[in-house]
Amino acid sequence: MTNELSDHFGDRLMAAVRVKKTPLVVGLDPRFKQIPEKLRLGVSDSAPEVAEVFRKFCFEIIDVVQGLVPAVKPQAAFFEQLGARGMQALADVIDYAVEAKLMVILDAKRGDIGSTAEAYARAFLGRKPKSNWGCDGLTINPYLGEDTLEPFVNRANETGSGVFVLVKTSNPGSHSLQEKETHQGKVYGLVGQHVERLSAASKGESGYGSVGAVVGATYPEQLAELRSAMPSTIFLVPGFGAQGGTAKDVEGGFDENGLGSIVNSSRGIIFAHAKPEYTELDCWQTAVEKATLDSMDRLAETTAGKLRSC
Amino acid sequence: MTNELSDHFGDRLMAAVRVKKTPLVVGLDPRFKQIPEKLRLGVSDSAPEVAEVFRKFCFEIIDVVQGLVPAVKPQAAFFEQLGARGMQALADVIDYAVEAKLMVILDAKRGDIGSTAEAYARAFLGRKPKSNWGCDGLTINPYLGEDTLEPFVNRANETGSGVFVLVKTSNPGSHSLQEKETHQGKVYGLVGQHVERLSAASKGESGYGSVGAVVGATYPEQLAELRSAMPSTIFLVPGFGAQGGTAKDVEGGFDENGLGSIVNSSRGIIFAHAKPEYTELDCWQTAVEKATLDSMDRLAETTAGKLRSC
Repeated sequence: MTNELSDHFGDRLMAAVRVKKTPLVVGLDPRFKQIPEKLRLGVSDSAPEVAEVFRKFCFEIIDVVQGLVPAVKPQAAFFEQLGARGMQALADVIDYAVEAKLMVILDAKRGDIGSTAEAYARAFLGRKPKSNWGCDGLTINPYLGEDTLEPFVNRANETGSGVFVLVKTSNPGSHSLQEKETHQGKVYGLVGQHVERLSAASKGESGYGSVGAVVGATYPEQLAELRSAMPSTIFLVPGFGAQGGTAKDVEGGFDENGLGSIVNSSRGIIFAHAKPEYTELDCWQTAVEKATLDSMDRLAETTAGKLRSC
Repeated sequence: MTNELSDHFGDRLMAAVRVKKTPLVVGLDPRFKQIPEKLRLGVSDSAPEVAEVFRKFCFEIIDVVQGLVPAVKPQAAFFEQLGARGMQALADVIDYAVEAKLMVILDAKRGDIGSTAEAYARAFLGRKPKSNWGCDGLTINPYLGEDTLEPFVNRANETGSGVFVLVKTSNPGSHSLQEKETHQGKVYGLVGQHVERLSAASKGESGYGSVGAVVGATYPEQLAELRSAMPSTIFLVPGFGAQGGTAKDVEGGFDENGLGSIVNSSRGIIFAHAKPEYTELDCWQTAVEKATLDSMDRLAETTAGKLRSC
């Protein structure tokens, strides 16, 4: 029943989704001004003090969601904003989530060439002591070319971790490069084809590989199209909730068993205390819990609802 | 004569190139096993100890090159590999280089959407206290789309810093995405066009803007083609030296005054002590100095030689 039995990332993640009966992943995107006032009282905006608030805030969210969801996805940018002290807070948050038996997918969108890509891969991929950051998964960027994905994929396979390659992102301007039409099809489609090849080559018992794809919830048609073109690839689907993606929009990302995608929600959950429907609750943690359960319910109205009867 | 007079990144960088009479930038890519043995004696491979070695090594390189070159380019990946302690070493190296009156371009290839891109921009762009890392420039990745470059460009313009957008990278597999032919031309060409528009809109007295482009020395034809297509854009040219790019290969990156490009060399300089032509020297720092001067001489055989008579 635990998700630690397998050394294969895809199998481990799909097992965690089955155990928690939901594909929902909670994004840890701390933004100082949106954090509950209680945690900010008397805190200056100096980097070390804000880093401490980020740490506490994320720890409390992990406490709330650890029994509910398979994974969390910390967003590196918000921690990096605070300099090296922010990075220490990020390291602590990753450790805390791992201790809480959550899988950790770091959203850092790294990418570089040759031995530099190898350094990024070694930095993040694989639980401690396999890497110094100790993550289960990492988002990576394909612009530099197919050869630059290799060091990440190799390291992921060696360490039982996984990567999610950006294929079709959730932002309004993602079309400007990703949807450019080439002689072999759209750019994102070509990246998707390559990712599927890598994923198929690392396929586990679950039928899914360790090389995933980021495909935004805000593009439901592309999501469904890519689902059928990429049968071995787990999708990390951002844009659900605050960015406008609905449960109906992510429906196309699931296979017939309700597997194959994990769906991230960040702001809609972690800042739920500020949403009209949750302001009446006794404390902000209850708002986070309620928002998590509500998101799980909405996702259960899709094919992902099949997980509930697994 | 100093490069601090202007608040405009392009002007500041071109002034620094003119003052130092060279477009050479030294890349700080510490790799533990290649660092001079003297610095590694008695050091374990634990992250805190290695981070300390990286810090010392980079400090010494900065001491050697600070009077010679306009800028250094730390590579984030090698520091990230060591976890949060590595990030503290990176922060110290950036501070030390700024104190040494060098411009600092962080090679971190960041990229994300909306407010997350804004967080990365706020993290790195602008000297302290404008940002917590305090860099003059940052490399960024265009895959997520044109809208995702905006937060970086806006922040760069606000803080007198700059960005270098990946256009055509130096790795052998860069063709696999960047050279895909679309109905409007090759992918890298389209990215280049957009970068040129952004750069032209931020043009300073030097004729160059604050939005640069990364164009690899290993693709001399594309470099020359992009130079004429992107007259307002400063190029950051990696791949010179250890990656095989020669002075002749980078020639096409310069304008008629020997400006318009900065050329990075990392391994060829910082690990010069291990190269046959420098092993006879009294110490590794002398090898770094000699390799820097030799690289400057090689670049002076190109149009960049015009800087010497400025």
